[in-house]
Amino acid sequence: MTTRQPTTVFLVGAGPGDPDLLTVKALRLIQEADAIVYDRLVAEEILDLIPAETTRIFAGKASRRQGTPQDQINAMLVTLAQEGRKVVRLKGGDPFVFGRGSEEALHLVENGVPFEVVPGVTAAMACAAYSGIPLTHRGLAKSVRVITGHRRDDHALDFDWRALADPETTLVVYMGLANLELIAKELIDAGAEPSRPAAAIHRGSTPHQRTVIGTLATLPEKVRNAGLTAPTTVIIGEVALLGETLDWFTPVEASDQEAHG
Amino acid sequence: MTTRQPTTVFLVGAGPGDPDLLTVKALRLIQEADAIVYDRLVAEEILDLIPAETTRIFAGKASRRQGTPQDQINAMLVTLAQEGRKVVRLKGGDPFVFGRGSEEALHLVENGVPFEVVPGVTAAMACAAYSGIPLTHRGLAKSVRVITGHRRDDHALDFDWRALADPETTLVVYMGLANLELIAKELIDAGAEPSRPAAAIHRGSTPHQRTVIGTLATLPEKVRNAGLTAPTTVIIGEVALLGETLDWFTPVEASDQEAHG
Repeated sequence: MTTRQPTTVFLVGAGPGDPDLLTVKALRLIQEADAIVYDRLVAEEILDLIPAETTRIFAGKASRRQGTPQDQINAMLVTLAQEGRKVVRLKGGDPFVFGRGSEEALHLVENGVPFEVVPGVTAAMACAAYSGIPLTHRGLAKSVRVITGHRRDDHALDFDWRALADPETTLVVYMGLANLELIAKELIDAGAEPSRPAAAIHRGSTPHQRTVIGTLATLPEKVRNAGLTAPTTVIIGEVALLGETLDWFTPVEASDQEAHG
Repeated sequence: MTTRQPTTVFLVGAGPGDPDLLTVKALRLIQEADAIVYDRLVAEEILDLIPAETTRIFAGKASRRQGTPQDQINAMLVTLAQEGRKVVRLKGGDPFVFGRGSEEALHLVENGVPFEVVPGVTAAMACAAYSGIPLTHRGLAKSVRVITGHRRDDHALDFDWRALADPETTLVVYMGLANLELIAKELIDAGAEPSRPAAAIHRGSTPHQRTVIGTLATLPEKVRNAGLTAPTTVIIGEVALLGETLDWFTPVEASDQEAHG
């Protein structure tokens, strides 16, 4: 064990998948790193930017026998920094929005490893921009709320549904596919109109993007019929209807809006 | 009047101010544009990247006599596109989060002008990353809500305060300075603990960043004592306390945490 100063670990948001939507800083760090620890949500197109000589470590391959995957990632980041490597911890979207970046940062602090956080374009903004669905719009939505529709270990979704049902707040649901039917039902039971517009955006901002627009009552079946798979982001609120007018991105023939209208 | 096809107008998020936090696409569009229409919230450091030969139009200079400023901006974008100019409409943060980008997009659609939207790093993620305050964190916050603390023409802040007071949701307030005292009071009246942590981040991600951390009860006075001015973003929730441990960015001597602790 040497006593050299550990290097700085960069916790970097990789954005939604389109390499053009990386920040300038993220792109530079990816190109200059010695080692990049990345997870499942980082798009293939982003990984293609990593120079051939850089060490790539997929954080999803952790073995249960060596503790939780998160413990192993934490330990790995500390070790790499202590070895003096230029370390980038690359996360889909933004590290501080459902990215567990702060858990890794706390572990680095506890081990005396300096770190920096590089924010990224999170899925809410990317899916909004590329589906033509604004998150706020005068007269339609004056606030935005972001939740995740998935719980680890099959825990129930224990939200205050009445608060989520607020008609003037755009609700964005990350990983919203598996529980979409339940979420729609809970919102309607809590007072939301079944006719409230809602949209599901699969792989927003990428060439694989597919958008389905419906209502709280119809979206779950429309999404099933369209065969959307994860990752899919759901946007619920009056603004979703604007996607029919402002969708500048989807090629006409690829749109599901007509086929399932 | 010619019948040529109008060019595409790019509605581009400029991010929080640090040029390094522009997306790769935004930087390229800024460098290739013929004309850039920008507003008050775009940082000087970003404007410095505009080539000298590019036409710069400050959208804040509109005259009341020619209709509302927004009407004039809308009309200007259409005219520039009809002239065949490569037009970038540059907005602070993200165009679809309190940016009125969708109003401009609707006007472009109505006038047959194609457009694209380029998402940006919005203040919530930038201030979170650069103050070390995660927006979500296991056991502390499972959802994020973003509101604006300012209303045009002195309209009242008419929120469902009980819903905003949810202890498991991080509340981010844009333009939160002028009404900070009122917001804290409403949240406490609606059931939030006065001891709930809260932070104010002035010019997050820039060299001018200043962070003040307190509680709902103490933050308004601490912010006054520190002399923070706009633009300041407020983050309310248990996560704010993590900023004391995870602030990797503020030089120690510039921190207000000790001076007003």
